Amino acid sequence: MSAKKIVIIGGVAAGPKAAARARRLDPDAEITIIERGRLISYAGCGMPYYLSGEVHKFDSLFETTYGVIRNEEYFWREKGCRVLTRTEAQKIDRDKKEVHVENLESGEKYVIPYDKLVLATGAEPFAPPIEGLNLKGVYKLNHPDDAQKIKERLDAEEGGEAVIIGAGLIGLETADALMKLHMFCSVVELQNQILPGMLDEDMAEILAKKLTDQGIEFYLGHKVLKLEGDEDGNVTAVVTDKGPIDAELVVVAVGVRPNVKLAREAGLAIGETGAIAVNEYLQTSDPDIYALGDCVETTHLVSGKKVYIPMATTANRQGRVVGDNVTGGNTVFRGVLGTSVLHTAGFNIGRTGLGEKQARDLGYKVVTALYHGFDRTHYHPDHGMVLMKLITEEGTGRVLGAQALGQGDTVKRIDVVATAITLGATVNQLAEVDLGYAPPFSTPIDVTAHAANIVRNKVAGLAETITPRELKEKMDRGDDMVILDVRTEPQFNMRRLKDDRVQLVVLGDLRERINDVPRDKEIVVICAMGTRSYEALRILKGAGFKNVKYMEGGLQAWPYEL
Amino acid sequence: MSAKKIVIIGGVAAGPKAAARARRLDPDAEITIIERGRLISYAGCGMPYYLSGEVHKFDSLFETTYGVIRNEEYFWREKGCRVLTRTEAQKIDRDKKEVHVENLESGEKYVIPYDKLVLATGAEPFAPPIEGLNLKGVYKLNHPDDAQKIKERLDAEEGGEAVIIGAGLIGLETADALMKLHMFCSVVELQNQILPGMLDEDMAEILAKKLTDQGIEFYLGHKVLKLEGDEDGNVTAVVTDKGPIDAELVVVAVGVRPNVKLAREAGLAIGETGAIAVNEYLQTSDPDIYALGDCVETTHLVSGKKVYIPMATTANRQGRVVGDNVTGGNTVFRGVLGTSVLHTAGFNIGRTGLGEKQARDLGYKVVTALYHGFDRTHYHPDHGMVLMKLITEEGTGRVLGAQALGQGDTVKRIDVVATAITLGATVNQLAEVDLGYAPPFSTPIDVTAHAANIVRNKVAGLAETITPRELKEKMDRGDDMVILDVRTEPQFNMRRLKDDRVQLVVLGDLRERINDVPRDKEIVVICAMGTRSYEALRILKGAGFKNVKYMEGGLQAWPYEL
Repeated sequence: MSAKKIVIIGGVAAGPKAAARARRLDPDAEITIIERGRLISYAGCGMPYYLSGEVHKFDSLFETTYGVIRNEEYFWREKGCRVLTRTEAQKIDRDKKEVHVENLESGEKYVIPYDKLVLATGAEPFAPPIEGLNLKGVYKLNHPDDAQKIKERLDAEEGGEAVIIGAGLIGLETADALMKLHMFCSVVELQNQILPGMLDEDMAEILAKKLTDQGIEFYLGHKVLKLEGDEDGNVTAVVTDKGPIDAELVVVAVGVRPNVKLAREAGLAIGETGAIAVNEYLQTSDPDIYALGDCVETTHLVSGKKVYIPMATTANRQGRVVGDNVTGGNTVFRGVLGTSVLHTAGFNIGRTGLGEKQARDLGYKVVTALYHGFDRTHYHPDHGMVLMKLITEEGTGRVLGAQALGQGDTVKRIDVVATAITLGATVNQLAEVDLGYAPPFSTPIDVTAHAANIVRNKVAGLAETITPRELKEKMDRGDDMVILDVRTEPQFNMRRLKDDRVQLVVLGDLRERINDVPRDKEIVVICAMGTRSYEALRILKGAGFKNVKYMEGGLQAWPYEL
Repeated sequence: MSAKKIVIIGGVAAGPKAAARARRLDPDAEITIIERGRLISYAGCGMPYYLSGEVHKFDSLFETTYGVIRNEEYFWREKGCRVLTRTEAQKIDRDKKEVHVENLESGEKYVIPYDKLVLATGAEPFAPPIEGLNLKGVYKLNHPDDAQKIKERLDAEEGGEAVIIGAGLIGLETADALMKLHMFCSVVELQNQILPGMLDEDMAEILAKKLTDQGIEFYLGHKVLKLEGDEDGNVTAVVTDKGPIDAELVVVAVGVRPNVKLAREAGLAIGETGAIAVNEYLQTSDPDIYALGDCVETTHLVSGKKVYIPMATTANRQGRVVGDNVTGGNTVFRGVLGTSVLHTAGFNIGRTGLGEKQARDLGYKVVTALYHGFDRTHYHPDHGMVLMKLITEEGTGRVLGAQALGQGDTVKRIDVVATAITLGATVNQLAEVDLGYAPPFSTPIDVTAHAANIVRNKVAGLAETITPRELKEKMDRGDDMVILDVRTEPQFNMRRLKDDRVQLVVLGDLRERINDVPRDKEIVVICAMGTRSYEALRILKGAGFKNVKYMEGGLQAWPYEL
């Protein structure tokens, strides 16, 4: 039997991973990676950190942990895989099982035969249909070359005003990097919220307030019409439907689209999301052709629906599966939770599973909780705040998703919830996990357990709650109610809701001043983070008050003026 | 109906938590907390951090997150619970349902009637039966007063040589605190390893090496015979069966024992572990008496066995359960995983579930993996190393436990594994969790997935491995073999095994130099962390070599001389 020919189109992340796994399983296979670009196997996610200077050396993005550059030679010598860079796959001949390629340097065209073909063609940044994208000072951040270009520009000219188009994950990571370089950052977003693919509107609103306090300026619900430049062809402004925004540097980060051209032209099935359709073995509609990474759609493990969520983690996990299956294995890739996390402007942000809106749109009845607290014991100097929203299914108690933000370690909690969701946990099970505790790491009752306990209290009828947004709507509507602030007097004097309906009764005084609280009105209890207002609610309920709610998340989660 | 009388003995952690929950559920109950000491509701786990100065204010250990001191007045005003400090519960009269107490200040004795009684009597540090415990300069660290006393001593006199008796969690946290105060720390331990209740011997050995490099001196397998002092009654030495160790300050930290005297005298059942026996509702053998926290035994969720593992997390979770049940609820406490974590000398250490030895002793057949890698992308400046040992059941693939150590974020991974074990995850499921990834937080394939993949590779017959300890034994035995080091030349020249059987073939050269490796000998491949040696093993296997293993964890996990 002659050696199996495995050909992989795409040399960034998913392709090389599949190649390396295949090599370890089949020492005799001929493995060829075809890459249009000059660079391979790079850490695309590291680009914002290279831009900011946190990653000093460009080469770091291409190095193994032991300092060897992952170039063609590395793949040949260490992995036994042939890599053809600057080589474009132009056509797949499925009948002859050949890939038609062109060497982009020499112009030479030839065919490469395959037994198994792997498509790891990735994704490309979406270019919005507007004028001015070619002006000087306009960039994207999808490829290390992009990072290099921005860096060269910033090295040549002092900062100034940067406008980022798109308030998604890459947009906000870019803003973080540019702020570290002392640029003034504005972010323009078509949707009415930041991180629209990631956070529910209420969480996004809270985060936007906090990031605004850190100096990022948001233009939400603004449609970009064009980019304007001066006579030298340098960009000067981002023109939106609500007016122009001055700009010396523009980064376009409005999302990516899967590269499916080759697959489509080869007649392979494209899924409803627009990405390549694959089965659980990551086979395309042609059983000898596999596809993985940023060019395929996958299954959401909670909803069971097809989704397009390009992620480095998915690409890597899929690489192992494809490596198995192209060498005769039978490994399954079940799907994703859409977990995503980012760091920007001192904040750690994450989500996993379904969002509240997503869940409701899918027909779930949900119970949510908003917990605001510390990631570590509050007396430990490293503590930081975490706001977590937990989304569970009414009735079954199944955990559907979580979103978290704060300067504290939110991502650990997202990982715990992701693990719980993967295994079908209920809110009771999540609350009862025996997590690790010591003061530098967590609190005796961790964030996830607190959030789960809030859900349990709500389900048990112990806690009726209202969100900051709902309270704001009631206030604006002029509802008759008492907003009972139970914080300490110094806290109240420093920062409070400016509203005639606010009444201060410090929690410790509430039992003896209970008759100062009107029994005939709706009571909304508020405090800093939600803990004391829940306690106060129980006191009021215990004293026979009927219409009492407390505001989840507390004033720390209040995204409006104070 | 008159108000229910709930009496709680013990005011440190579990008792107040149960009281607060009970209050929220039953506004009318009379809730009384009896505490022998002067201080209540304190953060016992914070003491090492107060000692080190990381926590500046003593009061921080008693404060709520909003700055109110948790004293008698706080419990009365905010929680509606009466707290009697300096009041000792001396006898339980179960027939009359009364607790006999004495006010330790006034000497007054009286009885307190109860409908439901809760025992939260905690634990006491074990005092070894040796001379010299009363010498000046000898301390324990169990109560905030102990921390105060050590601090007063250190404020009065400059550091010097501290000896800690006991290499358990508290012992190592204390060593960390004292080292931050520039003391020279020795730790004496009766067992042949550090953290004997927490880590397997192999992991403990690796950690001990790393902590020794940080300056902690360990005396393992040393039995303390007595403490010696000078004519002024100041401690001068810890005398062991292998000789004396100079000491200017001694901290005794040889573990705690549950306070069960009151329960035992009341005729309540004591469990096989020596702690109070309770059912899943945390009821003692008297259905009107509940017990929780550091005085009770609980169930290990993996083994199903009764265990005594006092932890603040357990106390808090149990507080919620007891609060429910004394007010008519029916809530179950299922048990624990024995999760514990600590920080010392720059290292983060954790374990959850069963250890390897523990699992084998219980009759499990296990497959383990040792993974060594980074907690974040290696190009991100904040990355740190993590060494994780994963313990799984052969055949079922069920995850049984994990242990981790390193300067990186080990605890996040322990939490993920704890969540997975709670929900009965298999190693495949653990490998496939869609965890959050961005360069400041993790790597595209996280530590837990890497460790799970090693188990999967071993089970699939792709990787035969050897541990550092096993290789050392083979070397010492004089086994005929080739120790094939596949690192780069600079790495090899800097630090390597000094042994004639070592042969250097850089991984990238292995394919072309394959004939330099003897085919008739046993080959043990080594590298820095284990990644390259696995790759080399696959190359050798692919070339027909039969007897090849690689060393898990790599030389970074080598605890012996180099």
